[in-house]
Amino acid sequence: MIDYGKILQRYKPDNNEKERINSIVADITGRIREYCSEKAIDADPVLVGSVAKGTNMKSGDIDIFVTFSKKYEKRDMEKIGVRIGRAMLAQGIEKYAEHPYVTGELDGYKIDLVPSYRLEPGEKKVSSVDRTPLHTEFILKNLTEGMRDQVILLKLFMKHFGIYGSEIRVSGFSGYICELLIWKFESFENVVSKFARLSGKLIIGNITRDNLPDAPVVIADPVDSDRNAAAAVSLETFSIMKVASKLFVSEPSEAFLDPHPPNPKPDYRDRGTAIRLFSLPRPHVVDDIIYPQAVKFRNALMDILDSGGFGPVSSEISIDGDVQIVIECTRAASPVIRQRTGPPADSDNVLDFIRKYRGISERGPYVKGDRIYADVRAEPESIEEFVTNHLPEISMGRNLGTMRDKLVIVNPFSSNVRYDALDKFYSKKLI
Amino acid sequence: MIDYGKILQRYKPDNNEKERINSIVADITGRIREYCSEKAIDADPVLVGSVAKGTNMKSGDIDIFVTFSKKYEKRDMEKIGVRIGRAMLAQGIEKYAEHPYVTGELDGYKIDLVPSYRLEPGEKKVSSVDRTPLHTEFILKNLTEGMRDQVILLKLFMKHFGIYGSEIRVSGFSGYICELLIWKFESFENVVSKFARLSGKLIIGNITRDNLPDAPVVIADPVDSDRNAAAAVSLETFSIMKVASKLFVSEPSEAFLDPHPPNPKPDYRDRGTAIRLFSLPRPHVVDDIIYPQAVKFRNALMDILDSGGFGPVSSEISIDGDVQIVIECTRAASPVIRQRTGPPADSDNVLDFIRKYRGISERGPYVKGDRIYADVRAEPESIEEFVTNHLPEISMGRNLGTMRDKLVIVNPFSSNVRYDALDKFYSKKLI
Repeated sequence: MIDYGKILQRYKPDNNEKERINSIVADITGRIREYCSEKAIDADPVLVGSVAKGTNMKSGDIDIFVTFSKKYEKRDMEKIGVRIGRAMLAQGIEKYAEHPYVTGELDGYKIDLVPSYRLEPGEKKVSSVDRTPLHTEFILKNLTEGMRDQVILLKLFMKHFGIYGSEIRVSGFSGYICELLIWKFESFENVVSKFARLSGKLIIGNITRDNLPDAPVVIADPVDSDRNAAAAVSLETFSIMKVASKLFVSEPSEAFLDPHPPNPKPDYRDRGTAIRLFSLPRPHVVDDIIYPQAVKFRNALMDILDSGGFGPVSSEISIDGDVQIVIECTRAASPVIRQRTGPPADSDNVLDFIRKYRGISERGPYVKGDRIYADVRAEPESIEEFVTNHLPEISMGRNLGTMRDKLVIVNPFSSNVRYDALDKFYSKKLI
Repeated sequence: MIDYGKILQRYKPDNNEKERINSIVADITGRIREYCSEKAIDADPVLVGSVAKGTNMKSGDIDIFVTFSKKYEKRDMEKIGVRIGRAMLAQGIEKYAEHPYVTGELDGYKIDLVPSYRLEPGEKKVSSVDRTPLHTEFILKNLTEGMRDQVILLKLFMKHFGIYGSEIRVSGFSGYICELLIWKFESFENVVSKFARLSGKLIIGNITRDNLPDAPVVIADPVDSDRNAAAAVSLETFSIMKVASKLFVSEPSEAFLDPHPPNPKPDYRDRGTAIRLFSLPRPHVVDDIIYPQAVKFRNALMDILDSGGFGPVSSEISIDGDVQIVIECTRAASPVIRQRTGPPADSDNVLDFIRKYRGISERGPYVKGDRIYADVRAEPESIEEFVTNHLPEISMGRNLGTMRDKLVIVNPFSSNVRYDALDKFYSKKLI
């Protein structure tokens, strides 16, 4: 039997902490009200997120929205919102997601101050952040104290398996999804046993739009039934949740509720392959902007290495710190015979291709499918040479592209340095 | 300027040959009539194919249909048809395509005797061979003597590039398609300049069925507008015809009308890869039956070699003689680290997979997409060992499967023997 009470004691804020958080919130919301009244700004602070809903964990972030009257233009709302944030948080820095917002620290707690519009239930939303206060109300009204504890257990479980969080980098389950799952299934164990038995998609509620979103998990948002609250969940994190749930049901253990499982640094062992780390300084933009660019860069590297005959087979990405990409290839040098891909048969350029390769090709020119090709003999190149030569044509997104000239390629066996992406690559495992 | 008259002189039957063919045809059709009359069989011989249409080349085959009254059951028609064939051709052998038929030799000419039903234009067809006499009538009525010569030039061009013939092994242009192309475009040069300028599909006529067949070349059969006469043409032979036509238009040369271009035996040079020849005795069935089985076997070999980490990149098939398959891999030994593919996340078997690999895997078990995987360290195997070990599970079709135990795997560098498939592989080229 798992002692859930003991686990909650460890990860749920105690009364002391609750009081401390309450006083921080009271202080900052009071100061915001005062500031707005002095400057005649028609806006109110609203506590949102897990603290507002009573589903927060020890030392969790505090999220406060500053909700503006609709009379403000969007630009003004954002500008004034950021100004308020800077006035409240001395060391606060401005970040940019859908809106600009200010993030800083108070008394050891990370605080996000996000400007938004006031919105009544049923009212047409202006931006996705406007919906957040409605989520808070819904959870407060529909989840009992006991159910809120169950949310914390579910979050711990998901953190253990690295699938908690709707950031693009994780593409997992948000706090709100955890709350909705408990609202629907009542307890952590019920949720897990549901996932353990699940086959195919998870669908909860009716999305009122005709087209059911093409997502593995579809959960109609109770405050906006047009919206799939689980749109961020990827097929992979959904699959991990299914397998993790099967594991828990078959061998229930407290270990699966440890949000930070022990993760010893792995040896960078020789796998009989060619592993390279591609590292770039990280541009100053938030994760959700930089991560898709890292994915794009990774995909472009895999494609170009494939075209060079290096046989890329697996990869890993890390953006905590530098942008790091690990690619594992089957060979470290390009093959002596390389297939040159020519134009499609429909194109008049096939004649130029034929004239160019007729004399020098080892095999061909020949037609395969609807294209022309030729096999040529070429000097082998190393991964480093090949990627460096093709770097100008590798697509990697706007922000990451500015760092193109700072690319460093590392062979893990010729270095004693530890790299996040290599640690992730070598220690990749579910259990 | 190309002297087309000289080329036709070389490849078109002269008057002597025409007379010889006429007398062979008169002899055999006379004997068939006599036989049928003696045995009271209601059937008539009909000369079909290129000889009947005046589009035949020197020493070409002679095709004769024995058309039966519809009063015969299909089984009887086939049985009696084969009996007639055997009576006419002393050394004739029975083959099986859509119908059984008899093939043999008379006076140095290959003769096919094919039983079929009599059919009037517009009448519902019983089998595809019933349509052939209608094709003969259509071409005789619509192609002038000069146009029939143009058909021969077009056939020579297509033979040069290996795209003449509707057999599955070639998946190219049949004699009838050549005739229809000349009917439509009038001359060889017009056809070639049409293909040289073509972009995308070639569509001639209207197929009356709603669903336009999903084929690269669609030519409505003038005697049966429900039918795509060019259904056998593959994307690849179509693309070759486009490129070949561009070549001819840009550098017109008699050399492109040589049906048997010089093809010196290539050296089996080291390409820095691992090339293996897989050879099986050929079962006694026609090309159109065995070729798809060879393709199936090739695909299964590529898949299994891919799963073993050998990195198969290209292949070649030959069925002239033995069934021979060449596969080129990037490596001759399997890698030390191999990815084991586990069950989908939905399956309860993931738990068994996890229990099996949790302790012994080099990396994982991990989830990718909707499946579980584990990387394990394994003894490298050679291509020969690996394929032999997995042979029982390789799918290769009914007839070829009977030869499974006779598989021979050859490394071309450890042998001085020449192999058709290796010759094809090494000399693969358009020009």
